[in-house]
Amino acid sequence: MTGSTAARFTADDYRARMDRAARAAADAGLAGLLVAPGPDLVWLTGYAPPAATERLTLLVLAAGQDPVLVVPALEAPDAAKATGAPALALRDWTDGKDPYALTAGLLDATGTFGISDNAWAMHLLAMQRALPGTSYVSLTDDLPMLRAVKDPAELELLAAAGAAADATFEEIRDVRFAGRRESDVAADLAGLLRRHGHSQVDFTIVASGPNGANPHHEVGDRVIEDGDMVVLDFGGLKDGYGSDTSRTVHVGEPTDEERTVHDLVRAAQEAGFRAVRPGVACQEVDRAARKVIEDAGYGPYFIHRTGHGIGVTTHEPPYMIEGEEQPLVPGMCFSVEPGVYLPGRFGVRIEDIVTVTEDGGRRLNDTTREMVVVD
Amino acid sequence: MTGSTAARFTADDYRARMDRAARAAADAGLAGLLVAPGPDLVWLTGYAPPAATERLTLLVLAAGQDPVLVVPALEAPDAAKATGAPALALRDWTDGKDPYALTAGLLDATGTFGISDNAWAMHLLAMQRALPGTSYVSLTDDLPMLRAVKDPAELELLAAAGAAADATFEEIRDVRFAGRRESDVAADLAGLLRRHGHSQVDFTIVASGPNGANPHHEVGDRVIEDGDMVVLDFGGLKDGYGSDTSRTVHVGEPTDEERTVHDLVRAAQEAGFRAVRPGVACQEVDRAARKVIEDAGYGPYFIHRTGHGIGVTTHEPPYMIEGEEQPLVPGMCFSVEPGVYLPGRFGVRIEDIVTVTEDGGRRLNDTTREMVVVD
Repeated sequence: MTGSTAARFTADDYRARMDRAARAAADAGLAGLLVAPGPDLVWLTGYAPPAATERLTLLVLAAGQDPVLVVPALEAPDAAKATGAPALALRDWTDGKDPYALTAGLLDATGTFGISDNAWAMHLLAMQRALPGTSYVSLTDDLPMLRAVKDPAELELLAAAGAAADATFEEIRDVRFAGRRESDVAADLAGLLRRHGHSQVDFTIVASGPNGANPHHEVGDRVIEDGDMVVLDFGGLKDGYGSDTSRTVHVGEPTDEERTVHDLVRAAQEAGFRAVRPGVACQEVDRAARKVIEDAGYGPYFIHRTGHGIGVTTHEPPYMIEGEEQPLVPGMCFSVEPGVYLPGRFGVRIEDIVTVTEDGGRRLNDTTREMVVVD
Repeated sequence: MTGSTAARFTADDYRARMDRAARAAADAGLAGLLVAPGPDLVWLTGYAPPAATERLTLLVLAAGQDPVLVVPALEAPDAAKATGAPALALRDWTDGKDPYALTAGLLDATGTFGISDNAWAMHLLAMQRALPGTSYVSLTDDLPMLRAVKDPAELELLAAAGAAADATFEEIRDVRFAGRRESDVAADLAGLLRRHGHSQVDFTIVASGPNGANPHHEVGDRVIEDGDMVVLDFGGLKDGYGSDTSRTVHVGEPTDEERTVHDLVRAAQEAGFRAVRPGVACQEVDRAARKVIEDAGYGPYFIHRTGHGIGVTTHEPPYMIEGEEQPLVPGMCFSVEPGVYLPGRFGVRIEDIVTVTEDGGRRLNDTTREMVVVD
């Protein structure tokens, strides 16, 4: 899937990212980084093997040495085709050989290394055995902001993914809701996302009536009724970059209270968005959105963080949450998605992806944030 | 996907599996097992969260203590619905709490634990920090045969998956090959597998002409021509259990050499199958198939192991490979899939899933192993 981004970037882009990552590792006091298949590897090299497996594939980045990708021999031809391949050395190993000994030969035997969060435990255990003097930390613990600042080409891809999600919303608002199951509308959403260029659909939340009051409800067999609020939250990957947007629609005419709560969430989302500018701590975005909801007396019903980063995945750092003091930097991209959840009754969530500009924020989703009435 | 197996098994089935696993761990000198989301967890509990994530979900099995599933609070309602849930205690944790401290409280602080191969490195590192006196080994290293012996209900599901793959072959042999791309035929295969009840398609290899000589070639844009040998190798999951079969077809009339090589591989596959019986070492299955090919002078062109296990995944222990001395046990299921690969020219592979019976082997694939001529 994500392999399709390769065409947009050059080997030099990947070389620059690997250089930046190696420097960041050195600045954090690490001897290097060990990167397993997954989003970090895609971002650093453009290489996305079909799956992580028991066969070791590992990118070794260390300051002052060229990047090396350790890869099973059978997969080496595919790895060599990755856009970032010219910026690294491939070291392949054949079945029956010891890939951990090969990797160990590339490492400082007493160093501390950052390793991808999702690297397989069996590979980490084997490295710990191969080099007992080394120690390891989780890559996201030590370098949470590694992929957080997007370059212009990445921003363009995120904007295109956002536009595709917006086009999906413009069409879903015209489908029939009343009398159909949540799962039917979710299938419509998935089809529309794909038709608008998504190669991967990560989530299609359709939470109607009381289901909307559970922010973790994804989709079920409940038949949507006239008078329901319906939270829609959907996204995935288009050309290797993520979309994620939420709108809350109403089947037929809303009550005054439903309008009030929707307006409140809309105001909170606006406040969160307005708080975005370089140098502001992530937690300030959360506080700005939360204050609007708390001031209206609905504080106890906003039960999640305000946002999360997005890039080659649909959920990643930075997190807009109390306690996150990381300052915003131009090029960061994340969701602003406050919500109010009234147990047993209904929920409202409104979400846009926002990117930090030189002097504020720019939304990558821009369908109406007024409440849309559907049939 | 794999959640759909739940209906076939009872809480008692899962209780028995967890008991067996805890005893196997104790016999191997381990203080317990830590099981992350993935095939081991599905097999032990019937619980399959949609994805492994940075939020800790972990089954703790230790001799003399009831199984405990540590799970994020938001996911606890889903976990409680798993068929195996009545056989374990759920311990949920909310965002902001430390799930590793919670897990550490369940463990012998100086024990050695088996941990799922695919557990995330970040979770293993956190456990190593939380309990510095513990040590860890990869579950498959210490208990490779944990899931290898299938019970009758599992065998029934594997047979049904095999029958669905066979039905797929019976239909694919009638489609047009000449003039179409490998990727077109692969899409047909995927559609047929789904139509025959597969919820997940893991691979649809279509390797035509010279591409067939690379056993790792999956599928490409090559247009299939009259006169091509075409290796078809496809499978996935149906009701949570795997299928995997290969047949090599020919577009139009084959040459004498092509017939000779196909007959040779067929004889090798038959020899491998005939070697299957309780007590025989896995490597004997490999040796039996390989000897036929070596005796004919094609030894250097059979460049992979003869087979791999299958169950809730499509590739798992036991492996039919030189050096594997594990004796076969009734209920084990694995592929027998010798091949000959002539670089730059063509390849042939024939593969059935075979299960060990009380006195031999039984094939779970049974389409013709004669060479099929297609259009």
